[in-house]
Order: sequence, then C-alpha cells, then structure tokens
Amino acid sequence: MPSVSSSFVLPVDLTKAYRLLNHGPTVLVSAQHAGEVNVMAAAWACALDFSPGKLTVVIDKATRTRALVERSGEFVIQVPTVAQAQLVHHVGTHSALTDSGKLERAGVEWLELPGFDLPLVAGCSAWMACRLISEPHNQSTYDLFIGEIVGAWADSRVFRDGHWLFENAPDELRSLHYIAGGHFYAIGDAVDVDVESTKG
Amino acid sequence: MPSVSSSFVLPVDLTKAYRLLNHGPTVLVSAQHAGEVNVMAAAWACALDFSPGKLTVVIDKATRTRALVERSGEFVIQVPTVAQAQLVHHVGTHSALTDSGKLERAGVEWLELPGFDLPLVAGCSAWMACRLISEPHNQSTYDLFIGEIVGAWADSRVFRDGHWLFENAPDELRSLHYIAGGHFYAIGDAVDVDVESTKG
Repeated sequence: MPSVSSSFVLPVDLTKAYRLLNHGPTVLVSAQHAGEVNVMAAAWACALDFSPGKLTVVIDKATRTRALVERSGEFVIQVPTVAQAQLVHHVGTHSALTDSGKLERAGVEWLELPGFDLPLVAGCSAWMACRLISEPHNQSTYDLFIGEIVGAWADSRVFRDGHWLFENAPDELRSLHYIAGGHFYAIGDAVDVDVESTKG
Repeated sequence: MPSVSSSFVLPVDLTKAYRLLNHGPTVLVSAQHAGEVNVMAAAWACALDFSPGKLTVVIDKATRTRALVERSGEFVIQVPTVAQAQLVHHVGTHSALTDSGKLERAGVEWLELPGFDLPLVAGCSAWMACRLISEPHNQSTYDLFIGEIVGAWADSRVFRDGHWLFENAPDELRSLHYIAGGHFYAIGDAVDVDVESTKG
C-alpha cells in the first residue's frame, strides 16, 4: 500500500493525549505482527487515565486485528475524519479473514513517521501508539482491551497545543461519531461554559 | 429538589440502547443509597456490548457518587444536552463531599417515571438504568465500572425508533462532548456513507 508523509503532523504531549479521545470519536484500530498488518473501525474506544495516558477499546473475537494486537502486544488508535467516512465504514464492515484485499479496496494508505515502525493510517487527525496492558479476564469475557499510550501525534491543523481546533479547521477534518447502518455524525459547534460562575 | 415529568419520554428497546452512547457523549452518572443521592459528570463512558447492553464508565475514587454506586449496586447513565452545559460542568467540578448543596446550586431536578425509583436527571435526552457488574480488580486498579443496561428511556423529540434525530430536533437537545477547561463540542451534522458501495 502507498505511504504518504504529512508536514502537518506534530507530536502531542502525552499528558494531553487523553484529549484526543475525550469527545468520544469513532476510531480506527491498527496493528501489525510478523509482516501482517490490519485496520478495523471501533466505535467503542474511550479514555481511561490521564498520566500515563490509558484507553480502552472493544475488539471483537471475530476480527483479524485482534489476533495481531494479542501477538504483538501493540496497537494504534487513530481518529479518522469526515473525509474518511467511506474508508471507516469499509474497514468496519469487512474482515481481512474473508477479504484479503480489504485494505487496498478501502483506500488505506500509511503515514510514514521517520524513526517509528507503526501502522499509522494516513489522513487521520490523530494517532495514539499503545502498549497492550494484558488483562486476560477483560479480553476474554468482555472483548475489552486496555492500552497505555506511549506515543501520540496529531494533524496540527485541527489539534495543536493540547486543544482541538475543529471550529477553525476545514470541516472535512472533523471527527466522526458512528451510530449504526452507515450513519455517522460529525463533531459540531463549540460550547463553552462560564467556568468562573461554577467555582466554589 | 423539584421533580418534573416529561410527556416526551419513551422507553428504548434494550437491544438498541447501546446507540444512546455509540457517538461518545459526555454523560451524567447518578446513584442513590440509603436516602442519599448524587450526580457527577463523566466524559469517559462507553458502550461495551449489544444484548444484553453493557457499558463502561470511569468513576474516580474521590467522588461521592462512587460510594453510592458500590453500596447500591445500581446507577443511571444519562445523556445531557447543550442546554445543560453549565449544569454538567457544575456537577463535574464540585463534590458533594465538600459542597453539600451541590445539586441545588447546579439546578438538578428529577424526572419522575411512575413505577420506577431511579435518580433520573430531568432535561437529559436519554437515560440508562444500570446494574453494576462487580469487577473488583477493574474498579480498584482502573476506576473502571461495568454496568448492564436494565432499562432505557429517551426524549422522543431527539431519539425515536432506535435512532438519534439530532438533525431534526432543536439544537439545545444535541449531546455534549467534553474536552477540558469548560470547553465542550455539541454533536454536529449527519454524515451518511453509501452502504451499498462498501458491500463485499
């Protein structure tokens, strides 16, 4: 698959990485092991801790990506954009177990970050490289996986200095929030409360 | 605190209840025990399973609500609206342990559902009554709580027949997605993919 580089990608302070997930976007989960790589969509991903940053993600037993996560002990959670809605739905509804050309047909390309060997899906707005925290009971009973965020990057056009900038970035960079049946919502307008008035 | 009834509230089919959380809204967690009731905000809540519907929520040890959840074995997860942003921020930044008048000052009112004794916060768009699935390791190590959804209701103006209707409902009923520092985003526009084109 083609690789692309992006001059917009900047590292994210790991103490702020939870903010990449805080608003509940649908994510892409990618993993690689022994030369094999795969990507799936997951609506059920969530921040779990601030520092070190941790997250949870539900990965069904029927997915090929799960085997790669379990064998490598590593995975990447990335935040796809409105421009990628068709790609997200494609990798979320096809399995590499029955469709070996899934990634090409979905249009997945890889982002190259010099010095890192990670399966980063190009075109996303944010990426979190995770180390699996092995919890066999959660994994087998609930399909629930816990990761520690060991590296994070974002497209600086839409996340910079620890803040999402959706209101000032192109609409096609907004995050996706899946419901069902090919129906997503984009993240919308900013809503700011009066922080002073809720003090003490 | 005042109680209100709503003629808009309808039950949600439990097999579709996961959709109330699928788009990753910030939620309110409420619980009651021995005559005491409390409400907190949580950005880290997530669907976990379809049927029976389950969810996860991270509840810090410093909260009073956590004690009520652990003692009663029950809690309610509700989806607040843009109109409630100030209330959400208030209950999310004040603890009943140090501010006994927190709920009154936040403006919390209760929704009465005849036949149910549940601490349902009025004005939300959806409510999920949960039975705690006790997982002491997750609770103590990660502050991670798992609930089975045993009852669900929604404001039929914005969720009906298993579908969110944000695009056709008043904007003040949109869900909130918290980032940090009093800064939320509302859920935004619908994005629909061509489901046929991604079929095998």
